[in-house]
Amino acid sequence: MSEKINVMVWNEYRHEKLNEKVKAIYPEGMHNAIADGIKAKDLNVKTATLDEPEHGLTDEVLKNTDVLIWWGHRAHGEVNDETVKKVQKRVLEGMGLIVLHSGHFSKIFKALMGTNCSLKWRVADDKERLWNLAPSHPITKGIGDYIELPAEEMYGERFDIPEPDKLIFVSWFEGGEVFRSGCCFERGNGRIFYFRPGHETYPTFRNEQILKVIGNAVRWASTKITITDVCPNFQPLEKISSKNK
Amino acid sequence: MSEKINVMVWNEYRHEKLNEKVKAIYPEGMHNAIADGIKAKDLNVKTATLDEPEHGLTDEVLKNTDVLIWWGHRAHGEVNDETVKKVQKRVLEGMGLIVLHSGHFSKIFKALMGTNCSLKWRVADDKERLWNLAPSHPITKGIGDYIELPAEEMYGERFDIPEPDKLIFVSWFEGGEVFRSGCCFERGNGRIFYFRPGHETYPTFRNEQILKVIGNAVRWASTKITITDVCPNFQPLEKISSKNK
Amino acid sequence: MSEKINVMVWNEYRHEKLNEKVKAIYPEGMHNAIADGIKAKDLNVKTATLDEPEHGLTDEVLKNTDVLIWWGHRAHGEVNDETVKKVQKRVLEGMGLIVLHSGHFSKIFKALMGTNCSLKWRVADDKERLWNLAPSHPITKGIGDYIELPAEEMYGERFDIPEPDKLIFVSWFEGGEVFRSGCCFERGNGRIFYFRPGHETYPTFRNEQILKVIGNAVRWASTKITITDVCPNFQPLEKISSKNK
Amino acid sequence: MSEKINVMVWNEYRHEKLNEKVKAIYPEGMHNAIADGIKAKDLNVKTATLDEPEHGLTDEVLKNTDVLIWWGHRAHGEVNDETVKKVQKRVLEGMGLIVLHSGHFSKIFKALMGTNCSLKWRVADDKERLWNLAPSHPITKGIGDYIELPAEEMYGERFDIPEPDKLIFVSWFEGGEVFRSGCCFERGNGRIFYFRPGHETYPTFRNEQILKVIGNAVRWASTKITITDVCPNFQPLEKISSKNK
Repeated sequence: MSEKINVMVWNEYRHEKLNEKVKAIYPEGMHNAIADGIKAKDLNVKTATLDEPEHGLTDEVLKNTDVLIWWGHRAHGEVNDETVKKVQKRVLEGMGLIVLHSGHFSKIFKALMGTNCSLKWRVADDKERLWNLAPSHPITKGIGDYIELPAEEMYGERFDIPEPDKLIFVSWFEGGEVFRSGCCFERGNGRIFYFRPGHETYPTFRNEQILKVIGNAVRWASTKITITDVCPNFQPLEKISSKNK
Repeated sequence: MSEKINVMVWNEYRHEKLNEKVKAIYPEGMHNAIADGIKAKDLNVKTATLDEPEHGLTDEVLKNTDVLIWWGHRAHGEVNDETVKKVQKRVLEGMGLIVLHSGHFSKIFKALMGTNCSLKWRVADDKERLWNLAPSHPITKGIGDYIELPAEEMYGERFDIPEPDKLIFVSWFEGGEVFRSGCCFERGNGRIFYFRPGHETYPTFRNEQILKVIGNAVRWASTKITITDVCPNFQPLEKISSKNK
Repeated sequence: MSEKINVMVWNEYRHEKLNEKVKAIYPEGMHNAIADGIKAKDLNVKTATLDEPEHGLTDEVLKNTDVLIWWGHRAHGEVNDETVKKVQKRVLEGMGLIVLHSGHFSKIFKALMGTNCSLKWRVADDKERLWNLAPSHPITKGIGDYIELPAEEMYGERFDIPEPDKLIFVSWFEGGEVFRSGCCFERGNGRIFYFRPGHETYPTFRNEQILKVIGNAVRWASTKITITDVCPNFQPLEKISSKNK
Repeated sequence: MSEKINVMVWNEYRHEKLNEKVKAIYPEGMHNAIADGIKAKDLNVKTATLDEPEHGLTDEVLKNTDVLIWWGHRAHGEVNDETVKKVQKRVLEGMGLIVLHSGHFSKIFKALMGTNCSLKWRVADDKERLWNLAPSHPITKGIGDYIELPAEEMYGERFDIPEPDKLIFVSWFEGGEVFRSGCCFERGNGRIFYFRPGHETYPTFRNEQILKVIGNAVRWASTKITITDVCPNFQPLEKISSKNK
């Protein structure tokens, strides 16, 4: 396993340019905060944003990405449908995908889940506490009983997703709600992790534990496998009796 | 539960008009064979086909359907994308969906699964034996250890679907393959059952046990519930401390 | 489905005799509060308690029980191992089982789960809010977004159970914790529902919504099926080639 | 991850002493065939057998085992209940467990599953073909579409286990049956893999692909984590209102 994992952090990168509060927290954009925050010897981390040509996700880039991290919010609709199809194809081939926060409503997440992915929400500086339900899972390595965030956007159930293959975190919110905030899914040959925190107006991607979870999730989601989809006409391995006809 | 379940059997209805062998088996179309085969006092069964206006699936029809049965094959591409979106919306609201055989590649099944839904296949008169893995599940009511079909198209693993919420049948094929041939999924508020048998050139929808499974699946999938999708800005139920800011 | 469901409410029935506070809330015992609270035309409800001969769970009684409701706490250790084995056998044959609150540590629940079933706990009058994650599931019929209990014992994650087959409720606690408080499991041919609320010092089994959930769970868990366990030497259905030897 | 994985191969080791046919295939016992077959630089492999003191599974041994491989058959009943409890405790703490073939009826597997674990069976030299349902899972690394065994004991559905957390292999048998022959489970903090092949009268543990799967499973099941079970009285993290009383 000496080969590095190729990670691409994709960010819409609009709020940081339009909202002074966001710009103050993430002057280089959330993508760079995340990329810096997870950098490690075993990871080769790059970034791409919505306004680059082909959203920075060309065929060549996707082919060479082992794990894609996705943050989007106000401009989900501007993501090209063709790009979404290519990303979905790559996930089903074996690329990992980490969907952050408001990415629950991204085209790519909805396409992979098949559901509405809707939820309750509120921006009111709720304290959030993410409880660790899977202490022996690689995604929670180095995380204790819970992660506490002093203020975040609230996301509340019912979160309209398929039953996760593995539930990692459940959040408690000060205003009275709960949320399945860390969810593993397997689709095709790819691994997907949805991770709730990360509203643009809070310094969540400066939090060391949040960054540790994202880094852990990258390693969990990396399969280094690419399996091309086929639907073959398959010859029998055993003799078929002619009497069936 | 005195209210009847409104069932709509949807069929592409092309093979029966184009292929003499199919026409001989299903002169009135597979949809009518299925509708006749499952008729019962608690079911109100109707049919619709691809070439009807709006494929026979108008807003009014979908609104009044509790469970939709879907058979398609050569003309998946001709199903209108708008109709697919409407059917998906209705499933997520609570409508049941039974997807038969080659419907694994229908737009609606792929949209709900998020995966390629590909598989191995062969039309070579394989004997098929569907083993019952869930003898206490309502879908296998009245079915014993297995169902045997003298000749069918073969579908083989790997079937590219999300892990089913419940696996009901696994098929053995004479030529040497296996297949997860009865799979339950829950998506949104709707229940989905994928059931493998039913290639157009075999009289599978004349088989009493196959028809019994389809009828059982209709009753399992009917929730009689319609929940409209919302993503509300939700007011706190508890006081939020101002110190978080 | 005209046949009634035979429900047995089993209660340890010790706290009500030893603790004045509990006696004041449940003078006839929790079992009678539950039995009264769920009574309906389609249910035939009986009760049994620890101190009856064979804990009131003779072979004859178990044979005629479709769904068993279990409440135990301080005297888990006094439940006879032989009775636990018989109950487990009946669940695997098809009997439903509803495990309430402190029953998480009962011998029968631990035997069926295979795990420690441990959790965090506190008796401090926490407000509890049970969020409904499955609005179209039969167990939440008639329940809205959530159930609120003014004061309850707190149970917190990590709850050491296998991943539930379906997660129905997640609880929010005033003191800052969350808990998977409504969990469906299938084991053998039987259906199991674990439901968290119901500490003896609170009038939880007087709450109409809690009683509604228990009644719904009884109907969901009733299969009316009894499948005897076998491990047969099975004759081949197809000819086996002698060349394999 | 430079630290080696400590693997213990446990074998009943009776058939090899009592049956000439078995002795001829495995003169040193199946445990040594497996230990030799999976040896690698990252594994530290030892063996233990039923007739050793404490079955070779002392507290010290278990404490230092990362993954335990289990083969038993005719003498399941002779395994000490106390040892079974200790092994279960270690699995729930984080030790991996690979259960082979007739181990489906071992005390330890039944205790962890909570079900009967029964199945259909036949010793008639059936050809077996294990289909790979999870080509990107670490357990199938280096395995193609399927593994073929020229002759094995048949195990047929229904296999009475909880729905696996992940289904890896499904077997086709020449005599007409199917079986979920590679199943992942998570229990407590431990990972469990049930792998079907390995009847004592066939040289299955000489097959390179079978040995590769077992080696892969060892690496998948090793968490190198030990989490002691607790059920703490937990102090509130947030202030609880006195008005609830």
